[in-house]
Amino acid sequence: MEGLFLLEGDKMAKEALEQAEVVHIYAMEDWIEAHKASIHSKEIPFTVITERELKAISALTTPNKVLLVLKQFTQKLETISLQKGYALYLDQIQDPGNMGTILRNADWFGIPYVFCSEGCADSYNSKVIQASMGAIFRVKVIHIPLAELLEANADIPVYGTVLEGSNLYEIEPAQNGLIVIGNEGRGISPELQSLLTHKVTIPRGKNGGAESLNAAVASGIVCAVFCKPEGN
Amino acid sequence: MEGLFLLEGDKMAKEALEQAEVVHIYAMEDWIEAHKASIHSKEIPFTVITERELKAISALTTPNKVLLVLKQFTQKLETISLQKGYALYLDQIQDPGNMGTILRNADWFGIPYVFCSEGCADSYNSKVIQASMGAIFRVKVIHIPLAELLEANADIPVYGTVLEGSNLYEIEPAQNGLIVIGNEGRGISPELQSLLTHKVTIPRGKNGGAESLNAAVASGIVCAVFCKPEGN
Repeated sequence: MEGLFLLEGDKMAKEALEQAEVVHIYAMEDWIEAHKASIHSKEIPFTVITERELKAISALTTPNKVLLVLKQFTQKLETISLQKGYALYLDQIQDPGNMGTILRNADWFGIPYVFCSEGCADSYNSKVIQASMGAIFRVKVIHIPLAELLEANADIPVYGTVLEGSNLYEIEPAQNGLIVIGNEGRGISPELQSLLTHKVTIPRGKNGGAESLNAAVASGIVCAVFCKPEGN
Repeated sequence: MEGLFLLEGDKMAKEALEQAEVVHIYAMEDWIEAHKASIHSKEIPFTVITERELKAISALTTPNKVLLVLKQFTQKLETISLQKGYALYLDQIQDPGNMGTILRNADWFGIPYVFCSEGCADSYNSKVIQASMGAIFRVKVIHIPLAELLEANADIPVYGTVLEGSNLYEIEPAQNGLIVIGNEGRGISPELQSLLTHKVTIPRGKNGGAESLNAAVASGIVCAVFCKPEGN
């Protein structure tokens, strides 16, 4: 299935019908019936399947009516400018659930681009797609080395979450920049740390015991602080 | 295996040796060798296994040297007071990964108790244990209806995350209270919403598209704001 990916469930499938190129639909009869207008107008091939057949092909524990085969998006870099607002850069985020959740964070906070280093999970992995909850239709995911990205965008602030950085709440975030999120076990690699202009830490609670936060949670907390709507 | 649970991997197993009651150790020879002092002094039964055998019994995709069988903790409610600091209350959090990640958040922010409604994931589910990254040794998990908890702790502020509440950044958090986190799909149930004293919303970004945040991420963002170390 080169250039294709799978997506499951009623909610995301509805979004996909509107926002993506659907190659084939495998769905239960009532789902096809409920969406026949758009299926016909877009001339999408479909196969009616039973609940039992859906269970057999689904990767979900509780499959929900429909499974789609979609065309992967083509993301072109030429026009990307990081001179306004924030973008995320993921350094070897390996867990597909984390990656999908980070895309969902970006979507919530209005971050248009999520860049990925080599060694990140495949952004079309079905667990990434499901955890993104539709973010893949709105957030652009682009695999590119950080150094290359910064060549085209010199002088932008590059923030990264580390364990011994400046207190997140004492920073005055710039109007734009890149937020680097490190690997689940090892954090941001030394090579990429040398490209950071600001090292940031989420302060641990007074009696906190954990060694670190989950990467998707950490990215959510940083995005919440950096991408607050104005006036907050 | 009534009253027991499983835990895997070198890092958490080390913590478990110190902080929990280990019933049996299944580990590769070098792991047993490296920890023989504490294994002998605590007289813990163990079985040396090969990498292949570990792979066969492990629930992880990349098992790491050791699998432990542990005794479940006994959590007594009698002495719990919510008059100082914060605690979390989970309303039907069903995904074990989310639940474990929320425990890890609590651990990071120094929150000592996580209460669970009926319908939450089993806190001894192996996915909860693994995602908690050791938080289960420090954070107490107690299954209790919210109304019952509040009977014993009248007049404490009860915050809950909803989609149409007060802006999180415009709230002056009290010195203590309970933070209620709702179910992944449905949010906080109407029954529990009626027990909230404050409804709180994490503001969406200016161009944000997602319908909601992941429950573990949302809890992390709220904890970060409510449990900031003093002076921030």
